[in-house]
Amino acid sequence: MFDNCVNKSLEAKFEALEADNAPGQEVRQDLGVLENVMRGGKLKGVPVDFSHGDVNAFTPTPDSENYWLEGFKQGGSQAYTEYRGALSVREILAKRLEKFTNTPVLPDSELILTPGTQGALFLALGATVASGTKVAIVEPDYFANRKLVKFFGGEVVPVPLCYLGEPSENGLNFNTLEKAFKNDTKVLVFSNPNNPTGIVYSEEVINKIAVLANKYNATVIVDQLYSRMLYNGEIYAHLRACKVRPKNLITIMGPSKTESLSGYRLGVAFGTSKIIDRMERLQAIVSLRAAGYNQAVFKTWFNEPKGWLENRIEQHEAIRDELLEVFRGANLKTATPQAGSYLFPKLPALSVDLNTFVRLLRYQANVTVTPASEFAPHLNDSIRLNFSQDHDAAIEAAKRIVKMVEIYAL
Amino acid sequence: MFDNCVNKSLEAKFEALEADNAPGQEVRQDLGVLENVMRGGKLKGVPVDFSHGDVNAFTPTPDSENYWLEGFKQGGSQAYTEYRGALSVREILAKRLEKFTNTPVLPDSELILTPGTQGALFLALGATVASGTKVAIVEPDYFANRKLVKFFGGEVVPVPLCYLGEPSENGLNFNTLEKAFKNDTKVLVFSNPNNPTGIVYSEEVINKIAVLANKYNATVIVDQLYSRMLYNGEIYAHLRACKVRPKNLITIMGPSKTESLSGYRLGVAFGTSKIIDRMERLQAIVSLRAAGYNQAVFKTWFNEPKGWLENRIEQHEAIRDELLEVFRGANLKTATPQAGSYLFPKLPALSVDLNTFVRLLRYQANVTVTPASEFAPHLNDSIRLNFSQDHDAAIEAAKRIVKMVEIYAL
Repeated sequence: MFDNCVNKSLEAKFEALEADNAPGQEVRQDLGVLENVMRGGKLKGVPVDFSHGDVNAFTPTPDSENYWLEGFKQGGSQAYTEYRGALSVREILAKRLEKFTNTPVLPDSELILTPGTQGALFLALGATVASGTKVAIVEPDYFANRKLVKFFGGEVVPVPLCYLGEPSENGLNFNTLEKAFKNDTKVLVFSNPNNPTGIVYSEEVINKIAVLANKYNATVIVDQLYSRMLYNGEIYAHLRACKVRPKNLITIMGPSKTESLSGYRLGVAFGTSKIIDRMERLQAIVSLRAAGYNQAVFKTWFNEPKGWLENRIEQHEAIRDELLEVFRGANLKTATPQAGSYLFPKLPALSVDLNTFVRLLRYQANVTVTPASEFAPHLNDSIRLNFSQDHDAAIEAAKRIVKMVEIYAL
Repeated sequence: MFDNCVNKSLEAKFEALEADNAPGQEVRQDLGVLENVMRGGKLKGVPVDFSHGDVNAFTPTPDSENYWLEGFKQGGSQAYTEYRGALSVREILAKRLEKFTNTPVLPDSELILTPGTQGALFLALGATVASGTKVAIVEPDYFANRKLVKFFGGEVVPVPLCYLGEPSENGLNFNTLEKAFKNDTKVLVFSNPNNPTGIVYSEEVINKIAVLANKYNATVIVDQLYSRMLYNGEIYAHLRACKVRPKNLITIMGPSKTESLSGYRLGVAFGTSKIIDRMERLQAIVSLRAAGYNQAVFKTWFNEPKGWLENRIEQHEAIRDELLEVFRGANLKTATPQAGSYLFPKLPALSVDLNTFVRLLRYQANVTVTPASEFAPHLNDSIRLNFSQDHDAAIEAAKRIVKMVEIYAL
């Protein structure tokens, strides 16, 4: 009945937004049917949900709830901010983001506070993608990028990422990217560090992206969500700090990951003021603003207690190293995450399809992961883990994954 | 430069989202130029911002911050909920909304928690409006409805509202509405109580809407944001409780107004499960979920201390009555708000246009209001006040409005 009264395009649009395998939605799946394909018994162990970070294991930035309470007590002025967020908060953040990215940020015109980095991505793509706009999407990359482009009526132009070679070989396929720009691709969106692989683009690659985007007048949206959690010896290059910079550039960040503040839904986008203006207009009809009281928690960001960030990075690096040992020890090819807490091991040929294997992992082994197909439609041989988890539980769960691979290997 | 690299449709789309006169955005206006048209000196008085409720005058539901803190302390399970919101919260709310609307609500399939009612409206229209969809919009009505339809590529079909007659005469023009449905209008969206006038649709009118929508298989989205603050002697009819109910119906509510919880950005939508499913898929790419910790504050809703709601209604009714006296005493025709805290006085012919008068009000008289044109494009003779303000300050500010009308009357 509902189908009769909406047009087909709407039906197709929402089919493309299918979210049953999206991280966090696993609870809506019916796992009962797995009994028919399951081999052997259940594997015992502490349940680990690698679909997102565990904020009970790595807790929110110290005192975040007190900053929140300060915001609440401030009352009306904090409840009803401009749609782009409270100016007082933007002024503080602009300075810190300027320092972090080595490039000026104007608090009034070049910065918007959003409901999480998801909100920032939605607004940035909504502000730059219309019906027919060609958008270069890295594969694999954050699953929502592709969905957003389709939702706004744009056309996805895939650009493959090399991530399983030597660090010097990793990066975008520049031939494909330049060809895309020549063929009228107007927007490039990508995450750095890359989600799901954890690789960081080299300074050379970032510079090359900047030069190409500038040459073809393309808009670049770069999602730097995990850029603060940079592992020992790694170097991070900010696209916005390049000598030749794209004229239309939006950088997206937020305190949901490294800082475990996801429960507050906070993100920022900063860059070209004309795009920021559009993003604010869109925010006005999407959800008005990031929750007012929550905006006050931004004050903790880039302002953590001394040593806190270094310690957090060290702890994640230790988990990373041990996970790499487990997976590589079982011959599962895995890129070394250079930043962030994503890990993307490649599986051998299995007797069940990837989605079934992922569901079996949850049902039989108490391990939740995200299938590679969420990050690149044709990729069906890898799984993504967010290893911001209790150290020991994560390693045990990784061993169960290896065991499950052995059980279901062809 | 930016214009070169995006298509024209995007430019037009964002022009239609112009938000300079939207409530809360006044701070971004340059008022200096007003010196040239200003007559006489500034009018002294406590500044009053009628563009939204004053949560310092009418404070949030008691203990909301402690409920929030409980959510925060719950940790991961409250930070990462399903996109449609925590099931534990939905189970509590479904029962309360069922009681309030006299109609069952299934917590798992018929209810979604959203970032404010703005978020709910965005998702509901995004789930039902595609390129070319005709949508009936009441005029005047909440300004974002029209913008949302345009943003999703739909076509606005205006349906006039009569609101300045006797209560029995007030309501929709049913000839226009039925003609619209006959001409392939697939969606009707409206607020009840009406924003900006404060009138409540009679049971008869609501029934007639339900019957018509059902007859023509139209989807109805009804924004009942202010339906709890019902004044003495008034009766509220829930569309979803009608005997003949539209098959596709979404009801939207939230605790931002009567309960002054706007700083938390919380709203709900409930109704047809297929639409709720789509709304969740859209939520997944818009901002994932209503801020996790904030969702815990829903537990205060429909659960306020005994007498709290009655007291709040009484206080607003007293302000309403005195404001009506002030405006009607100056011959400004004003509908009697039957619920909520919006008031929509009609102004006489002025020597300046409405936007200039509204800016003068702010600059010269320290009073912020919203121009009628935000609620109906061709309406330029009224202003909207949200009178959820400090009682005395509101009355004094209303007197300054009357004085300003006298100064600028033709």
